[in-house]
Amino acid sequence: MESSLEELTAENLTPHVIKVSTENVKNERLVELVTGLIQHLHDYVKEVQLKPTEWEAAVQYLTQVGQDSSPDRQEMILLSDVLGVSALVDTINSAQAKASSATESSVLGPFHSEDTHTLTNGQSIGSPGVIGELMLIHGTVKSVSGAPIEGVAVDVWETNGNGLYDMQDPNRDGPNCRGIFQTDSQGRYYLVGVKSVNYDIPTDGSVGLLLNMLKRNITRPAHVHFQLKHPQYLNLTTALYASDSEHITSDPVFGVKKSLVKSFEWSDDPATLINELGLKASLQQMKWNGKGLWVLHHEFVLLEK
Amino acid sequence: MESSLEELTAENLTPHVIKVSTENVKNERLVELVTGLIQHLHDYVKEVQLKPTEWEAAVQYLTQVGQDSSPDRQEMILLSDVLGVSALVDTINSAQAKASSATESSVLGPFHSEDTHTLTNGQSIGSPGVIGELMLIHGTVKSVSGAPIEGVAVDVWETNGNGLYDMQDPNRDGPNCRGIFQTDSQGRYYLVGVKSVNYDIPTDGSVGLLLNMLKRNITRPAHVHFQLKHPQYLNLTTALYASDSEHITSDPVFGVKKSLVKSFEWSDDPATLINELGLKASLQQMKWNGKGLWVLHHEFVLLEK
Repeated sequence: MESSLEELTAENLTPHVIKVSTENVKNERLVELVTGLIQHLHDYVKEVQLKPTEWEAAVQYLTQVGQDSSPDRQEMILLSDVLGVSALVDTINSAQAKASSATESSVLGPFHSEDTHTLTNGQSIGSPGVIGELMLIHGTVKSVSGAPIEGVAVDVWETNGNGLYDMQDPNRDGPNCRGIFQTDSQGRYYLVGVKSVNYDIPTDGSVGLLLNMLKRNITRPAHVHFQLKHPQYLNLTTALYASDSEHITSDPVFGVKKSLVKSFEWSDDPATLINELGLKASLQQMKWNGKGLWVLHHEFVLLEK
Repeated sequence: MESSLEELTAENLTPHVIKVSTENVKNERLVELVTGLIQHLHDYVKEVQLKPTEWEAAVQYLTQVGQDSSPDRQEMILLSDVLGVSALVDTINSAQAKASSATESSVLGPFHSEDTHTLTNGQSIGSPGVIGELMLIHGTVKSVSGAPIEGVAVDVWETNGNGLYDMQDPNRDGPNCRGIFQTDSQGRYYLVGVKSVNYDIPTDGSVGLLLNMLKRNITRPAHVHFQLKHPQYLNLTTALYASDSEHITSDPVFGVKKSLVKSFEWSDDPATLINELGLKASLQQMKWNGKGLWVLHHEFVLLEK
């Protein structure tokens, strides 16, 4: 360890820190992750010749992102999202799906919550009195071979019609616009939600400061989040995006993929679907006005483990 | 902005995020900082093919580092320190000092505090009853031309003899082992402190988890921190390190530079110094046993603005 009493220079410091940080580590993946992290952090500092005041601002900023985070708000995920890191991790890890007919993944986002409820097909994820137009969300979950998969846990979440997730509502008294369903013996999931709307990602925290400084678009295109789990299949985190959103090509978190863009259809006469899926009770409870429904239909395809 | 509806790939995502993040920004330095940040973050993710579980762990970890931080504890600075980033920023920005006879800088560390007290030369930074052996810290502040500089604010901080900064003491009732002095008309600063000891950086937080995982040394070599400020000179943040510390070559935060390594001298008969500097009252207050003193002497040289 004599090296650190040699003069520390911009050239010898980086290999020294890497050596000290990895020489006692047996786990090869950890060595790889730590080596690359130190190398890229140092390369960045050297490349931009980072000034002490800029370093201090960065430290304070990252601290604030952590402190803005809470069980109800994950600002660090949001930061990763707006820097495209979440989308990149998603993209490089979804090669298998892209190579097959399986459904592509999308970013998780900061608003997934374990505080949801278990519902049965046909129920509504919105509380009675939820804001927005009602939307039937339905389809089938299949394997790559086309066989329907029974017993897939389909975790759905979206904002209500005012563009806020339940956790953003100060008067929240339980999960709203989210729920977990199980596919039936035909692989079907079906539920009542609200028509997704474009919404602004939260800008009252550190990430908002950044986006404002960069004069970036803050509005996400309307979408519904899904997370699908089944013991014999790979977990899938994805979302379906409304094709008619004017923000479909300017998503601030870079989550949109062509294959996930869907037409949210207006149906003047959804009676057949309502009868077939037994939605009458739910729609009554949701005070449906009987004048048609929005419909989002999607066939999910999962990869076997 | 049609590009984001082209397929997002590991290749086209990075330039797209950079474009979206900088196309409306006029400040060239901001464009440079943001471009490099996104490029290096993405390069890192691609190089190590970061897995979703690893991304999630990283997000949670950074969040925790922010949440471990408080006015009394800056864990994000400590993380920057142990990754060598603080030392690198310091090194690339101290070229001017290295090229001259000026005193080199060192890392600020996470324990500088505005909650200190203004003292006059000769006073002790330690409270009566402080743990440790007494040490006289003294010298002159000069310009590169050798002229003494009057009125330099010399901010000094160190641990007490148990290796803890005052802010780490749950029973803290005010600043201890820190204080700000002004150089006199001869450019002199002189004060009573305690002999610095090796100490462990705090390991009860996120950074401790990391260092433990990497099996890295956590003990810093004994040192005293200084921050020098004068309106006509560049601010200097530095530290003096004890040459006899067994950790002088294994500093976990990479702050040691050859020119900052000093011999902490034991003086059997410091009477001349005590008389010259008028330290008698302070030493009495500190219950000096009269059997000699440790002495740390250093001439600081500041660069003109």
